[in-house]
Amino acid sequence: MKIKLVIEYDGLNFSGWQSQEGERTIQGELESVIEKVIGRPITLYASGRTDAGVSAKAQVAHFEVEDDFKFNAFSFLGSVNFFLPNEICVKSAEIASNDFDARFTAKKKTYRYHFYISRYERPLYMRALRVNDNISLEKMKKACKYLIGEHDFSSFVARKSGKTNFIRQIYAAQILELGDGLLAFEVTGNGFLYNMVRIIIGTLVMLGSKNHEPEEMIEIIKSKSRARAGKTVSGVPLCLMSVEYDDK
Amino acid sequence: MKIKLVIEYDGLNFSGWQSQEGERTIQGELESVIEKVIGRPITLYASGRTDAGVSAKAQVAHFEVEDDFKFNAFSFLGSVNFFLPNEICVKSAEIASNDFDARFTAKKKTYRYHFYISRYERPLYMRALRVNDNISLEKMKKACKYLIGEHDFSSFVARKSGKTNFIRQIYAAQILELGDGLLAFEVTGNGFLYNMVRIIIGTLVMLGSKNHEPEEMIEIIKSKSRARAGKTVSGVPLCLMSVEYDDK
Repeated sequence: MKIKLVIEYDGLNFSGWQSQEGERTIQGELESVIEKVIGRPITLYASGRTDAGVSAKAQVAHFEVEDDFKFNAFSFLGSVNFFLPNEICVKSAEIASNDFDARFTAKKKTYRYHFYISRYERPLYMRALRVNDNISLEKMKKACKYLIGEHDFSSFVARKSGKTNFIRQIYAAQILELGDGLLAFEVTGNGFLYNMVRIIIGTLVMLGSKNHEPEEMIEIIKSKSRARAGKTVSGVPLCLMSVEYDDK
Repeated sequence: MKIKLVIEYDGLNFSGWQSQEGERTIQGELESVIEKVIGRPITLYASGRTDAGVSAKAQVAHFEVEDDFKFNAFSFLGSVNFFLPNEICVKSAEIASNDFDARFTAKKKTYRYHFYISRYERPLYMRALRVNDNISLEKMKKACKYLIGEHDFSSFVARKSGKTNFIRQIYAAQILELGDGLLAFEVTGNGFLYNMVRIIIGTLVMLGSKNHEPEEMIEIIKSKSRARAGKTVSGVPLCLMSVEYDDK
């Protein structure tokens, strides 16, 4: 029997999703609480690992238990959330079909990266990236458009070891104005490479600055060269917003 | 010469606005940095003191300096913000007319109180108040309407010592739905009594619950009795959004 979870977490004080000896991780906290609550060992599989500092509004994960396990979502959620630290919340838990897999059946993921443009730090936007006010938001918005479509995103991957396929489909990429100067880059795709969203943000900031033009995004993608893209920005302003699956 | 400042701060780790011996306060931090930057002692007067834990998006304050002081807003903002802790930002600084007074010429103030309705803690809404999900948002919204107008708000004041006039004018009071379950009570008035917004929120939560009706707000106001209103909720989810003055 597979149990599907939707999880919200504030990743600031965690070493990312994946369990690591001696580190505080989302997976580690969740597995240890769930094991205590259901009284048997489990392994959690997420839609994807989030990096250190990265948050999630609706991460999806699953685990397996024996079919004779009596699953009661109401009592499961109550006790799991009671024991979890305040930074993690299991928002829903339900029995999934046997062919459900949080990672391999995920069709679309949406990430949001919060930032603001200001000469000074904004105390109420602590988790958002500050971008200096000599940047052009219009140029950043234009550059977003070139990300949409199916591309080889080799220029936007931190390290290529282990992966051979760098082609990803981006369905939507836009800058949202959330009010009072708070901005977000929101991107939806069929999957994302390691650090891809953070390198895209670094590149958008670069292309929004004085000596660059939005159209350079086309060449940066074509070049398949990490050196052509911008810096990898902090993970803290990044949030996994949703993971979509085919309804079955 | 009067200098008018607009200040944003995250009040979580401060003992409120007002300077107090041995306490970390917004006024204390600002005065000590400004004195260093301009090289002379000053006293800051805010539109009003915010309590411990309360934040501000646009608090207004002023200070006086001798008329021969050479004021350069660009360099003032640069150095003050450089020395201030990240939790405080002076967003603007300008010379005000001599009859300007941040406190006594303020005409309207708007506060926002963030909350959400959920059985479990929402990790990404850490500063917002969690309200249990057996509450009716519709009843809370209705109860807000009875606050609008000129009323004696004696039922909503923490302690009456020192004040004799409890009449305040409320121009607007509503619940905003900010998306993904984040809510805010936003209230605009000509002034607010000590703890007034926090007691109003406690009362709205009470009236939204099972054994109460929104119309009770009318009687609670009429009673002029603190005992009839709800509890004083935490100050952390409260934010001073704006202070308005007559244009002169």
